[in-house]
Amino acid sequence: MFFARCRAVAKCVLANQSFYRFSTVYFNSRHFVRKMYTYTERGGQDTQEYHGFFSGSNGYISPMHDIPLYADSPNKVFNMVVEIPRWTNAKMEINLASSLNPMKQDIKKGKLRYVNNVFPYHGYIWNYGALPQTWEDPQVVDADTRCKGDGDPIDVCEIGTMVAKRGEVKQVKILGVMALIDEGETDWKVLAIDVKDPLASKMNDIGDVDKHMPGLLKATHEWFKIYKVPTGKPENEFAFGGQAKDQAFAFKVIADCNQHWSKMMGNAQAPQNLSCSNTTLNNASTITTADAQKIVEQVPATGTPGTVSASVDEWHYVKQT
Amino acid sequence: MFFARCRAVAKCVLANQSFYRFSTVYFNSRHFVRKMYTYTERGGQDTQEYHGFFSGSNGYISPMHDIPLYADSPNKVFNMVVEIPRWTNAKMEINLASSLNPMKQDIKKGKLRYVNNVFPYHGYIWNYGALPQTWEDPQVVDADTRCKGDGDPIDVCEIGTMVAKRGEVKQVKILGVMALIDEGETDWKVLAIDVKDPLASKMNDIGDVDKHMPGLLKATHEWFKIYKVPTGKPENEFAFGGQAKDQAFAFKVIADCNQHWSKMMGNAQAPQNLSCSNTTLNNASTITTADAQKIVEQVPATGTPGTVSASVDEWHYVKQT
Repeated sequence: MFFARCRAVAKCVLANQSFYRFSTVYFNSRHFVRKMYTYTERGGQDTQEYHGFFSGSNGYISPMHDIPLYADSPNKVFNMVVEIPRWTNAKMEINLASSLNPMKQDIKKGKLRYVNNVFPYHGYIWNYGALPQTWEDPQVVDADTRCKGDGDPIDVCEIGTMVAKRGEVKQVKILGVMALIDEGETDWKVLAIDVKDPLASKMNDIGDVDKHMPGLLKATHEWFKIYKVPTGKPENEFAFGGQAKDQAFAFKVIADCNQHWSKMMGNAQAPQNLSCSNTTLNNASTITTADAQKIVEQVPATGTPGTVSASVDEWHYVKQT
Repeated sequence: MFFARCRAVAKCVLANQSFYRFSTVYFNSRHFVRKMYTYTERGGQDTQEYHGFFSGSNGYISPMHDIPLYADSPNKVFNMVVEIPRWTNAKMEINLASSLNPMKQDIKKGKLRYVNNVFPYHGYIWNYGALPQTWEDPQVVDADTRCKGDGDPIDVCEIGTMVAKRGEVKQVKILGVMALIDEGETDWKVLAIDVKDPLASKMNDIGDVDKHMPGLLKATHEWFKIYKVPTGKPENEFAFGGQAKDQAFAFKVIADCNQHWSKMMGNAQAPQNLSCSNTTLNNASTITTADAQKIVEQVPATGTPGTVSASVDEWHYVKQT
């Protein structure tokens, strides 16, 4: 399979407001796909007012519902929404409860959440994000993990060379998946690589990860196991003894979670704290782009950045069991 | 021993030029020490024109010669000049060849040098810098390592919690030392901790490092062993099988290198590519503060920042022998 790709990222700052425009033209022997998404930041950085809104060519969209899961279905290329760039700590995520599901920083006990640095790691060790149009249904017990879903879209660890930008929409190849059991809930962690990464052509299944990136799977397991220990929580557990399952297994997990999302969107009643508002799906929750614009404009365009505590830089040493 | 300390860092930007002022008041039951150094950046960031100059209360100084090795000699508190903050890659160092020994970025094959990220590490894993008034004499064969010195001041890995700033002058406690043999030269790596670090009072010798920071000594050994492998160089070697020697040994190494520096400064002829110019020592190389000012002003106060290649963010996977 032949892939070629051009890409441009432009950052524009206008009246203190940032936009990131991710323009991707990517094609192979059979397909030509053009996608463009823009990420617009409103409210102050490192504050509870921060919102990152996504737009497509016709106005604002929901990154959860309006960005298609597949960038190129026949070639199994997926879209991934980057929430947390590698080596950073701010726990940003697509906010399910808010209309249009903007990116917001997670809040714990009234405070902005920053994930601890656990030695020898600095922040997240991959570009971390979510697969759009997937949902780990909290009512469904997974046959393998025997735990219910965590109510979130599927998480992705993009293991490529580049450090991504928050709000970037990447096109990725799926390599495998780990089944984290996070406080009793199934929390799939898909392993993927940006299709434009120099190593992407050599990475076709989970076995290739250890071949080209020795130590990364072990570190990924360790990272998820201990990352909450500095906050006083126990080590996380895994299904499959912490082993990563292969690409075929990951495809099935993704397809199942895409089904759960699809079914949820078809229900008359949305789950609590999950906004289904979208601008492109032509379903009961679809709103006009004018209404979407109004939702965005409820958040102040600018804001004073918050102060980040120096403790975010602390290194925590965890003795593992 | 009782330590209390107040500290303030102020960053001022004036006409695009940055100053960092590190103001430290630190005292214990027997001493009151006040030190103030200012770090002034000239020339564009990430360019070969970048220079970081140091000044004391009476004007510009050399960080190599004018900052005393001991901040508090009876209590064995040392000054450390921070060259490379933790988790960064730019190989900044006190430039021995230039008058007043400003901080400059190392150049290899005509290009600014950035140290590679070797998985699982991001950049340098400590605040890295130098002990002033020390010199590893390239004419003297060390009795333990059987290698000559590398002609630089002693390197320090400050292992405290905080991420330092480039140009900061820290007061540190010495904990031990590793003997790296870097391309056949002795290159001591002193392990130290900022006296104001929350763990400093518990860290009194090398054995305390593994107790409070499990894994750090092993990672430090591994990091130095493999950090040049991605550039095509072989693994570095160590004396003492890579084990860190204790505080008493480190004190002896430091005292020896302080002697080498002292002897070198007393010689009629300075070594090639080592500027002995200073403004406070009242020796043959002492220059007036007016002349020091002229040296500084030869470098343009401002400059366009350079472009940093995205490859600096790459993660390199090294299979160790």
